[in-house]
Amino acid sequence: MTAANSLYTIGVDYGTQSGRAVLVNIRNGHEEAVHVMPYRHGVIDEFLPSSGMKLKPEWALQHPADYLEVLRTAVPAVIRTSGVDPSHIIGIGIDFTACTMLPVDQQFEPLCFKDDWKDRPHAWLKLWKHHAAQKEATAINELAQSRGEKWLSRYGGKLSSEWMLAKSLQILKEDPEVYREADLFVEAADWIVAQMTGELKRNSCTAGYKSNWHKADGYPSRDFLRQLDPAFEDLYESKLRGEVSPLGSRAGGLLPAMAEQMNLRPGIAVAVGNIDAHAAVPAVGVVSPGKMVMVMGTSTCHLLLAEEERAAQGICGVVEDGIIPGLFGYEAGQSAVGDIFAWFVDESVPAYVLTEAQEKGVTVHELLEQKASQLKPGESGLMALDWLNGNRSPLMDADLSGLMLGMTLATKPEEMYRALLEATAFGTRTIVEAFRNGGLEVNELYACGGLPNRNKLLMQIYADVNNMEITLSDTELSPAIGAAMFAAVVAGRETGGYSSIQEAAVHMARVKEETVRPIPENVDVYEDLYEQYRSLHDLFGKGANSVMKQLRRIRNK
Amino acid sequence: MTAANSLYTIGVDYGTQSGRAVLVNIRNGHEEAVHVMPYRHGVIDEFLPSSGMKLKPEWALQHPADYLEVLRTAVPAVIRTSGVDPSHIIGIGIDFTACTMLPVDQQFEPLCFKDDWKDRPHAWLKLWKHHAAQKEATAINELAQSRGEKWLSRYGGKLSSEWMLAKSLQILKEDPEVYREADLFVEAADWIVAQMTGELKRNSCTAGYKSNWHKADGYPSRDFLRQLDPAFEDLYESKLRGEVSPLGSRAGGLLPAMAEQMNLRPGIAVAVGNIDAHAAVPAVGVVSPGKMVMVMGTSTCHLLLAEEERAAQGICGVVEDGIIPGLFGYEAGQSAVGDIFAWFVDESVPAYVLTEAQEKGVTVHELLEQKASQLKPGESGLMALDWLNGNRSPLMDADLSGLMLGMTLATKPEEMYRALLEATAFGTRTIVEAFRNGGLEVNELYACGGLPNRNKLLMQIYADVNNMEITLSDTELSPAIGAAMFAAVVAGRETGGYSSIQEAAVHMARVKEETVRPIPENVDVYEDLYEQYRSLHDLFGKGANSVMKQLRRIRNK
Repeated sequence: MTAANSLYTIGVDYGTQSGRAVLVNIRNGHEEAVHVMPYRHGVIDEFLPSSGMKLKPEWALQHPADYLEVLRTAVPAVIRTSGVDPSHIIGIGIDFTACTMLPVDQQFEPLCFKDDWKDRPHAWLKLWKHHAAQKEATAINELAQSRGEKWLSRYGGKLSSEWMLAKSLQILKEDPEVYREADLFVEAADWIVAQMTGELKRNSCTAGYKSNWHKADGYPSRDFLRQLDPAFEDLYESKLRGEVSPLGSRAGGLLPAMAEQMNLRPGIAVAVGNIDAHAAVPAVGVVSPGKMVMVMGTSTCHLLLAEEERAAQGICGVVEDGIIPGLFGYEAGQSAVGDIFAWFVDESVPAYVLTEAQEKGVTVHELLEQKASQLKPGESGLMALDWLNGNRSPLMDADLSGLMLGMTLATKPEEMYRALLEATAFGTRTIVEAFRNGGLEVNELYACGGLPNRNKLLMQIYADVNNMEITLSDTELSPAIGAAMFAAVVAGRETGGYSSIQEAAVHMARVKEETVRPIPENVDVYEDLYEQYRSLHDLFGKGANSVMKQLRRIRNK
Repeated sequence: MTAANSLYTIGVDYGTQSGRAVLVNIRNGHEEAVHVMPYRHGVIDEFLPSSGMKLKPEWALQHPADYLEVLRTAVPAVIRTSGVDPSHIIGIGIDFTACTMLPVDQQFEPLCFKDDWKDRPHAWLKLWKHHAAQKEATAINELAQSRGEKWLSRYGGKLSSEWMLAKSLQILKEDPEVYREADLFVEAADWIVAQMTGELKRNSCTAGYKSNWHKADGYPSRDFLRQLDPAFEDLYESKLRGEVSPLGSRAGGLLPAMAEQMNLRPGIAVAVGNIDAHAAVPAVGVVSPGKMVMVMGTSTCHLLLAEEERAAQGICGVVEDGIIPGLFGYEAGQSAVGDIFAWFVDESVPAYVLTEAQEKGVTVHELLEQKASQLKPGESGLMALDWLNGNRSPLMDADLSGLMLGMTLATKPEEMYRALLEATAFGTRTIVEAFRNGGLEVNELYACGGLPNRNKLLMQIYADVNNMEITLSDTELSPAIGAAMFAAVVAGRETGGYSSIQEAAVHMARVKEETVRPIPENVDVYEDLYEQYRSLHDLFGKGANSVMKQLRRIRNK
């Protein structure tokens, strides 16, 4: 099956529910084997595993031991399945959700592994979607705004409650003993790499996007932190200390003990950690400016490269070396995409559609897509706003909500479904325009993740709405492929790897030959429809009409 | 079963799909028997029955023979079923959809019964929901506005394409030969009465609401009509000629030939025709000002009495003697109510809800009502606009469409269902406010029709949103009961009937003892929510945001 002279790397993608290892041929990017390992403890959002203590709303934890189990189980599994000789595997890279952070001791041991601490919720690992630090995020944002902190503009004017500063401050405020006890706060991405190498290297991607690191300016000032809390002043020198290494750096060699468990050769190259979406960018061959990569799943992450740093309004973050070493990486996002379509199918599709799908032997999504494909743009008279989980970019407002307009007594489910597909495409266009308004070029779209290959109509709508050609990934495993590409880079030329991510991309990037091209007559109608979307977007999203906020207020009374 | 000395009248209710006869005890309003007769030809909106010719879009015809069949079948059926001695039946009254009109010859024979004419679509009876005369209605409205016709304000500033002027003008424009051939255009309500009595009495209700008759000022001028079309000038003196008789007038005695077919005594009193919704008003005991009657079914008709004539903006019509003789009757309406809930259940309720309803042995509506009842006002964070079939009152705009706002990924079907119930209640409140702004008192609500008794939550929401007590009809047959009440009035005291509709109402009106009272804490929340509804209502309904219109434009491109 595998050529004797082939070389391989392993990418390990740590998602929200599971970790997956992919063994990749570095000559062609081919996936020799994949193994998915669901986390034993899943997302911990109800009860603490140790004591069964009830967690408060908005908490979301994970068990770090589950991540180690992925290394011990999924990595040997892909080696076994592929039949690849471990001596031909020259490196390993990982990508992770972020900011997923944990407090550890001087030996990088998680506090939640320790009997003295495991019953305290704040000793545990906080998953990216732990949303209980909103109070702290608000305090951080208000102070940063009032002080005119210039780093704030790099994050679209607002830090998220999901990020390192808010999560750290929540620990300090709510359990100062855990704060004191922790030697370090680390991203899970860096922690799992440190487990493999024995040393902590903070990667430039999570450090930049999630911990406010800037290559030239460093971190927010002690003065700023002191104003938040005197005990917070030395956060970056103490809990978050550690050198920041650009993506594409070698974190170290694989420790013998770990190598044995993983069935790999000791000492092979381990790359510094990366964020899942960001790792997908080189995996679709994007290593230069002007090409916006959409990582489309339950939500969508938009990633763009540029030679220079600019403050684009509504963009979540810009980080030098944040995606590709040597370039500025920009990130924006839509907080719900596939989630919206899933919600619609679960909560709004009538039984007769389900029956028809069963009779035809297709999924409800497929049937709705078939029916929606028969409609012309604008034919339904419907328009939706894609804010069922708020708006991340460009409005950065979690309190916005969904809207559907134009229904009549003749409106059909496939029309509403199509309106929701279109709404997410319009949402992406607002992000494209935000980039362009910030002076950044966007000339082509690239799509990867779970959605694009499953929904042809969706991609055609994105091409038509944005009037740009879309290149599709040829795999749903782009993040893991990207991690494996960085592994091939850190393995280096001398072991048969590559000298740069650009070189790795030439060989390993995986896209389909056929692209999705805009259909001119659709482009015209969508131009007209997009104006209507913008009208609603600005009306409800920029404060002219406050009904969405008022309904939240009334709901929370 | 029936007391030997009881007396009875029959009310015949002509609906859109069927006619129903009700035999009523005039001492207590009790329904002794009901018989429903679906129209053999139903609604004719695809092919002409005679030739099979394809009808154009928006056409809706009926077959007058179907109405006669109701008299010959349903009336004998209720007599038979009830066991009532026909000699104890002292009168008959009918109510009808309107404007449902037909061209007839000098003997009141419909042109569509004649071999020479039956293949011409315009020779047929046009049902109220024939919407193909919009062009004519627009011409009428534009001319009336430019001439400043003062009668226009009695109809909220706009005549409907459903009404007599537009339908007549469409005949003239599209088939002048039919126009010339017709001796008269008559409301079906008046035609069926003429079939029973041999003489034409135009009733004040349809004449006023549908044919622009005014008790003091008469009809629109010859000058106005001539400007529409020279051949239209004498419309009211020719095709629409005939005395207008107030409701509660005797149309004549039942002709022997008809009496024989109907198994009734010849010569018994026949009341002048009436509109279905309007006949319901006395049937719930409303014969004086300040009480708004809501006839709630697929759509809702709002009816109110007053001592004086006022121009209330957004009200569909005001007619002296239009509902109760001696008072001014006001009409307003919501063009979809039950239709919206039915649409939602058909097109937006997921299979799991259907399954749960089946397991519990309830309908989907009942299950959704149960679940929605568990929610507090405002809890869902949702808000809807009830415009899925446009807005009749107070905006009079058929091109408006539906809206749902506030959805999140956690939104459930019962929350959307409740939001739609609430939207119709808010819609009714805008009508109450339009009446009040016009200087008319609205102090109590009355509800009848198919919806109120089937949906307890709906009525509680109406009471809470409008902060008024609601009296519920004790029957779903209010229009037929009202027709039977007018029959008892025209039978007169001398035969055992009543001297006035007020007197008939004392004995025959049918309401429940228990009323629906507003719940103070809900009233407060709905006050707040109504402000949000008004904000959206004014935004999309009054032109500040044109998205609904723009989407129509794009759809129709």
